[in-house]
Amino acid sequence: MAKTNPGRFFEDYRIGEVIAHAVPRTVSGGERALYHALYPARHALYSSDEFARACGLDQSPLDDLAAFHIVFGKTVPDISLNAVANLGYAEGRWLKPVYPGDTLRATSQVIGLKQNSNGKSGVVWVRTRGINQDDEPVLDYIRWVMVRKGDPNADAPDTLVPELKPALAADDLVIPEGLDFARYDFTLAGGLHRMADYAIGEKIDHVDGVTIEEAEHMMATRLWQNTAKVHFDATNREDGKRLIYGGHVISLARALSFNGLANAQMIVGLNAGAHANPCFAGDTLRAWSEVLDMAETTHPGVGAVRLRLVAMKHGAPAFALKGEDGKYLPEVLLDLDYWALMPI
Amino acid sequence: MAKTNPGRFFEDYRIGEVIAHAVPRTVSGGERALYHALYPARHALYSSDEFARACGLDQSPLDDLAAFHIVFGKTVPDISLNAVANLGYAEGRWLKPVYPGDTLRATSQVIGLKQNSNGKSGVVWVRTRGINQDDEPVLDYIRWVMVRKGDPNADAPDTLVPELKPALAADDLVIPEGLDFARYDFTLAGGLHRMADYAIGEKIDHVDGVTIEEAEHMMATRLWQNTAKVHFDATNREDGKRLIYGGHVISLARALSFNGLANAQMIVGLNAGAHANPCFAGDTLRAWSEVLDMAETTHPGVGAVRLRLVAMKHGAPAFALKGEDGKYLPEVLLDLDYWALMPI
Amino acid sequence: MAKTNPGRFFEDYRIGEVIAHAVPRTVSGGERALYHALYPARHALYSSDEFARACGLDQSPLDDLAAFHIVFGKTVPDISLNAVANLGYAEGRWLKPVYPGDTLRATSQVIGLKQNSNGKSGVVWVRTRGINQDDEPVLDYIRWVMVRKGDPNADAPDTLVPELKPALAADDLVIPEGLDFARYDFTLAGGLHRMADYAIGEKIDHVDGVTIEEAEHMMATRLWQNTAKVHFDATNREDGKRLIYGGHVISLARALSFNGLANAQMIVGLNAGAHANPCFAGDTLRAWSEVLDMAETTHPGVGAVRLRLVAMKHGAPAFALKGEDGKYLPEVLLDLDYWALMPI
Repeated sequence: MAKTNPGRFFEDYRIGEVIAHAVPRTVSGGERALYHALYPARHALYSSDEFARACGLDQSPLDDLAAFHIVFGKTVPDISLNAVANLGYAEGRWLKPVYPGDTLRATSQVIGLKQNSNGKSGVVWVRTRGINQDDEPVLDYIRWVMVRKGDPNADAPDTLVPELKPALAADDLVIPEGLDFARYDFTLAGGLHRMADYAIGEKIDHVDGVTIEEAEHMMATRLWQNTAKVHFDATNREDGKRLIYGGHVISLARALSFNGLANAQMIVGLNAGAHANPCFAGDTLRAWSEVLDMAETTHPGVGAVRLRLVAMKHGAPAFALKGEDGKYLPEVLLDLDYWALMPI
Repeated sequence: MAKTNPGRFFEDYRIGEVIAHAVPRTVSGGERALYHALYPARHALYSSDEFARACGLDQSPLDDLAAFHIVFGKTVPDISLNAVANLGYAEGRWLKPVYPGDTLRATSQVIGLKQNSNGKSGVVWVRTRGINQDDEPVLDYIRWVMVRKGDPNADAPDTLVPELKPALAADDLVIPEGLDFARYDFTLAGGLHRMADYAIGEKIDHVDGVTIEEAEHMMATRLWQNTAKVHFDATNREDGKRLIYGGHVISLARALSFNGLANAQMIVGLNAGAHANPCFAGDTLRAWSEVLDMAETTHPGVGAVRLRLVAMKHGAPAFALKGEDGKYLPEVLLDLDYWALMPI
Repeated sequence: MAKTNPGRFFEDYRIGEVIAHAVPRTVSGGERALYHALYPARHALYSSDEFARACGLDQSPLDDLAAFHIVFGKTVPDISLNAVANLGYAEGRWLKPVYPGDTLRATSQVIGLKQNSNGKSGVVWVRTRGINQDDEPVLDYIRWVMVRKGDPNADAPDTLVPELKPALAADDLVIPEGLDFARYDFTLAGGLHRMADYAIGEKIDHVDGVTIEEAEHMMATRLWQNTAKVHFDATNREDGKRLIYGGHVISLARALSFNGLANAQMIVGLNAGAHANPCFAGDTLRAWSEVLDMAETTHPGVGAVRLRLVAMKHGAPAFALKGEDGKYLPEVLLDLDYWALMPI
């Protein structure tokens, strides 16, 4: 009996089953410090306990994306070890801030299956939930991946493609308890623009660039206990390159977006996301954003802004996205659609 | 009077003397987070306070190897600054878990001396002890190194070669107070195999590989305050390479061994260890294990498994170890013999 | 209205104005662990809570230079984003240790302005202050930088060049409350030399070298939330190199100085500093010190030592500094003049 984890193949998933993922993780100030060392993160709410308290929270939470990466990392051995591609995200909601001392675990429920016409692989949809030590959900999102079949002759399952919201509505978002931007300090936050200063359709070039090193993306990906071989093992691909975890690109782009969106403080919704092209060490990453929507919330001074965040390689044209054929330009790495909270 | 530390030479050691090593170190969640960023560590007991508590501990301890590296690092300025080679380990025992907030210091007693026949160097055996802020020993091990003579004409000391146990017996091991695997959660731990599922002589290929970067091994080695020049200074060797600290290889291999030995939770004994060949940045490291022995303990549900852990470079044959001449194959980096605790 | 920060240009500064810098930062054991991973730091007071308590402090503070870097980093978006050169430091004083849990913010007052004769740039002098969550100053220093003009036709301001002390006197220094070296443990500190063992004019070669990696200096510089593009973006300079943050060189050199100055524990004054030449990844850094002055303090057993700390590249002659023309030799990276506290 093999002692190592072979991962699951397409035929191993059943609609409705709930997979409990392994290796719970307690976070501390160490994870916060490393997040700031790995990414040029400057959003004040995640940097200062005092700033977070002035906004009605108990203390500065772990960056929302760090919480996402930790939960995501736990799912890899069960969901994407034999994945051919990470196809998309939908209906992601942050339900409760994660604080130092919290312990996170994760479960995924299989909510969709569709074998590919070639019979060699299929698409698996899961709803993943991050849960803290008090059994409270902190994060919830749908992801779908293409997974190889272990046995090409295994029967195809009944096809079930879940209906996904193209985007969460502002009413779907969960605002952290007590959050209050009524006395928000724009000077300390590092940006003078409130929600009213932005317009739907406005695009922002985040200006700065970061050249990526192997040691950095591997340290980040290990920190989230993501075990996918392709990120760590230079002998895994024929070209000898280590593919950078898509979440590393998300966090880099989000951190760069501070320059122009310093007050888009908390991420509360993930509508969609595409890892358009692979990213490798040596690439210099840049980012731009587009304001897609805005809404008020019932919390004092707190607005919700829906943003497109695009990461691209140095050399791409300004606001690069798709070509005339509707396909992503080769320099585009990430196209992310999310909701953040901002003073109105 | 020179202000810098010249290190000790072979003729500077006296049988029986106890050397108090410098620079005590307080650990926190920061060291735990960095350990997870530097190594693909996934053993649940070191990742989750909740999991550790369910196993009868107060919280998740610092990884046993991190405690070892910290204690080892303290000894370098006094023991191995002028060492030609790190020859071996024996009778290593972890005596008490190290928790965030603990402060570690170290002492070494000289227990053996033998001048080499060339008269230019000799072997020094020391018993090193790691001690916490309450003066309790947390770790104890014997190490022997070959050290240069400062003065080739210095008299040879009386030869004393200590008798070393080839391996600790299960009865020699100290099981952490309160440890209890009776309600061990195999799903959360990430591996379904208990001690009864393994057989003596069984070999496990840990499958995964990690390509090593300079920044990573230097950050790790600095974190343990290990000052050996050869790890940090590219001008130190004629080939311009920085030798990777042997402990970095130990931690990488141990972390990789999660895939196949997820429930070999705590390291409690170090029987022997050989750094068979040097490791450099760019090497892709793989690991395999062999079950050498098993024993029950008096703690509920807690078994002890004696394991050989071998680290090797990518390209080595499966389960590579020694050639027909009895020497380690050139791709083999580490041959470690240790005891771990596992649910029975 | 542009949403990104264009930085300030020379004509944007007014004598007397106080700039409140953004993004306060709470520090934890995570920052301490990372400081030890990024630099070969071994000063016992910053490594061990027990050692710090034996010296009269509450616990081990964050390294003084880490506090400096955090405060400095906050000033970059407002002071040096359009800087051509970082020209100097003066009158720097550490006023209060920074402990895990403290939150730091920073302000800078413009105290001098002088347009260059070319009319395209000018020198700005600021007094920067680091402030904790109780509104207590923890750090105070003067820095001056050459800043480009945004509009070359902007009027020149009245010239005001502040009078700066060439060095702080020992009486200017603030010794941390309660600091007491009467029962200082030289063995645990890792160096046997007290102030009385040093002589003014004595030079110390710190012997060890460190070869620098891109990932390390970028992680360090991000950790201090320093956003200067030139450190992170390989496309920023024509030669494709990333300039290493001068503070990274300061911390590396200071950490190397442990070997020879293990008891120069706390940095309390910064008299002057020149980043003599740029530093790039791949450079192997070495350091030497010169004792410039010594003084007693009113605290039990606590002396103050004024030191020159020079960082240079491997291959430089011993104690390299300036050539016959009075200019720094090309291998010299840093010439720093500071006060540290040492047992008398």
